[in-house]
Amino acid sequence: MNFDSIRPIADVELETRIRARLDSLTKPPGSLGRLEELAVQLGLIQSTDMPRIASKAMIIFCADHGVVEEGVSPYPSEVTRQMVANFRASGAAINVLCRHGGIEPVIVDMGVGKPTRNFARESAIARAAAEQAIETGFTYAAKAEILGAGEMGIGNTTSAAAIFSAFSGLDPLETAGRGTGLDDAGVARKVEVIRRALVLHRPDPQDPIGILAALGGFEIAAITGLILGAASRRHLVMLDGFITCAAAIVARAISPAALDYVVFSHCSAERGHKKMLDFLNARSLLNLEMRLGEGSGAALGIGLLEAAVNLYREMATFQSAGVSTSTQPAESPSAEAR
Amino acid sequence: MNFDSIRPIADVELETRIRARLDSLTKPPGSLGRLEELAVQLGLIQSTDMPRIASKAMIIFCADHGVVEEGVSPYPSEVTRQMVANFRASGAAINVLCRHGGIEPVIVDMGVGKPTRNFARESAIARAAAEQAIETGFTYAAKAEILGAGEMGIGNTTSAAAIFSAFSGLDPLETAGRGTGLDDAGVARKVEVIRRALVLHRPDPQDPIGILAALGGFEIAAITGLILGAASRRHLVMLDGFITCAAAIVARAISPAALDYVVFSHCSAERGHKKMLDFLNARSLLNLEMRLGEGSGAALGIGLLEAAVNLYREMATFQSAGVSTSTQPAESPSAEAR
Repeated sequence: MNFDSIRPIADVELETRIRARLDSLTKPPGSLGRLEELAVQLGLIQSTDMPRIASKAMIIFCADHGVVEEGVSPYPSEVTRQMVANFRASGAAINVLCRHGGIEPVIVDMGVGKPTRNFARESAIARAAAEQAIETGFTYAAKAEILGAGEMGIGNTTSAAAIFSAFSGLDPLETAGRGTGLDDAGVARKVEVIRRALVLHRPDPQDPIGILAALGGFEIAAITGLILGAASRRHLVMLDGFITCAAAIVARAISPAALDYVVFSHCSAERGHKKMLDFLNARSLLNLEMRLGEGSGAALGIGLLEAAVNLYREMATFQSAGVSTSTQPAESPSAEAR
Repeated sequence: MNFDSIRPIADVELETRIRARLDSLTKPPGSLGRLEELAVQLGLIQSTDMPRIASKAMIIFCADHGVVEEGVSPYPSEVTRQMVANFRASGAAINVLCRHGGIEPVIVDMGVGKPTRNFARESAIARAAAEQAIETGFTYAAKAEILGAGEMGIGNTTSAAAIFSAFSGLDPLETAGRGTGLDDAGVARKVEVIRRALVLHRPDPQDPIGILAALGGFEIAAITGLILGAASRRHLVMLDGFITCAAAIVARAISPAALDYVVFSHCSAERGHKKMLDFLNARSLLNLEMRLGEGSGAALGIGLLEAAVNLYREMATFQSAGVSTSTQPAESPSAEAR
């Protein structure tokens, strides 16, 4: 893993060319809104004024969490293995979305049935194992030019909320939510578990790998690696929800420029997600009150990215279509203009 | 046109069956958020617990507006005709989105090059012509089971804002925006034009056809008809942005139950759109700061609807996949549950 190869995507000359093309298309300037920004971002990532989507893969990292023994999920750990079987049998939500979106689903077992240790009592993972999981995720960035980041792991909203608290200093009351459907008593228990863990581990935001080792889990470490690997190969990675955003916090701490390669697909219904996006200075594309994970929001986000690229590449220009441009310059409105 | 045949979609027994299936799918209950609501709505519209998407068409109604002579658009009326030619040559944004979404684009000339009269000075359309345009739109609802509503017409944000003011009583300062890209002086002029028109016509919210006749335009009347026609045939209509929502206000005034058949695809960047959605008690699916029209937001919305239907129809159930359900009843959380 060579994080030094990760470069910011900024390129003023290229961005000017991309925006000039956008403004030459038969639409009022800027009228495709955030779809235009997606085209700009992908062009800058791919270092071209003609961005393309040549290959798409959804990498679904799956792992179990020892902290589940604290009663932080309404589902038993066994469900992680069952859902992995469901992924392999193409029966899960992410399979349906990938099938219709032309996205290759890639299921990666990062420790299903071999849970991390319970981070409420001890470090979830050895430091070397956390580094190894990052490295595994890093290699999966080679799978496609457009990567979706998905996950499955009963208990992993607890790890993700703990990671967010560790980096932000926010009390777990603000970062922990219902996950797959905890009741109020369950959420209160989850908050207490994370508070205890933060006292136990005293996590240091300057030591992102140490935080991953303390709080887990293997799939979050792998997603961190996927983001870093995507940035290092100049691939775009579409994040899913709360769990993958926790990995983005870790990735940013390792290499801030890595987030240039990230798109945040959706803001989930999980309580801490909006705050997490704010902490990352990120805006999501979608807000559909989803809270499933797996990569389900990322798959929808990739659909929007494709729409953006198709529009950018295929729309006629004012010149080619013989359409009159505005009589009023959009960038410098003038009081005289009619 | 028989508006009496329009019935609310509510059906408690059917909705219970649809929601039972949703909860049997391998995901935490409710975790697909608004996609689950879309599946419920389409099932109720189609009177089945197995909703389907058999055919999709985007109906793009195009017309010109006499009020353009007041200087309310930065583009000349000529652009309406040019963009219709662009639609026919498959070069516009809506063509790209329809092509990739498997949606048939249907371009309907409702008066291109034959503008309405300038509603700042006189009634835009004769009452009989407004009724005729509604009838035309009504017939296009037969085109497909899933209908997108699109439009093109230089000047039509001015008509739409005027219609919204007429029904809501809001000052045009709150309903009129930049349209395709007016500067501040242009917006101020647009506001004054609409204010004058409201004084001139004294529109009566109890007379929706009278409002269409006074303020135009032909495409907005046709979209009103499309919504009513969709409701009468139990087809779903995916609205686009500001213009199509103005038509929804008119359709609601004619037959309130018609809106049961409507989905609001996106909230555009046009200033009055959010207020208009609030006035309709509607929530949009997307908020991507688009402001293009044509049906571009509706095409993306149809993509989300398809995702919802595919998930509903194709996901495995807990039983078929052998996945354990929650140990905690989602609907009646209990303090004892772990």
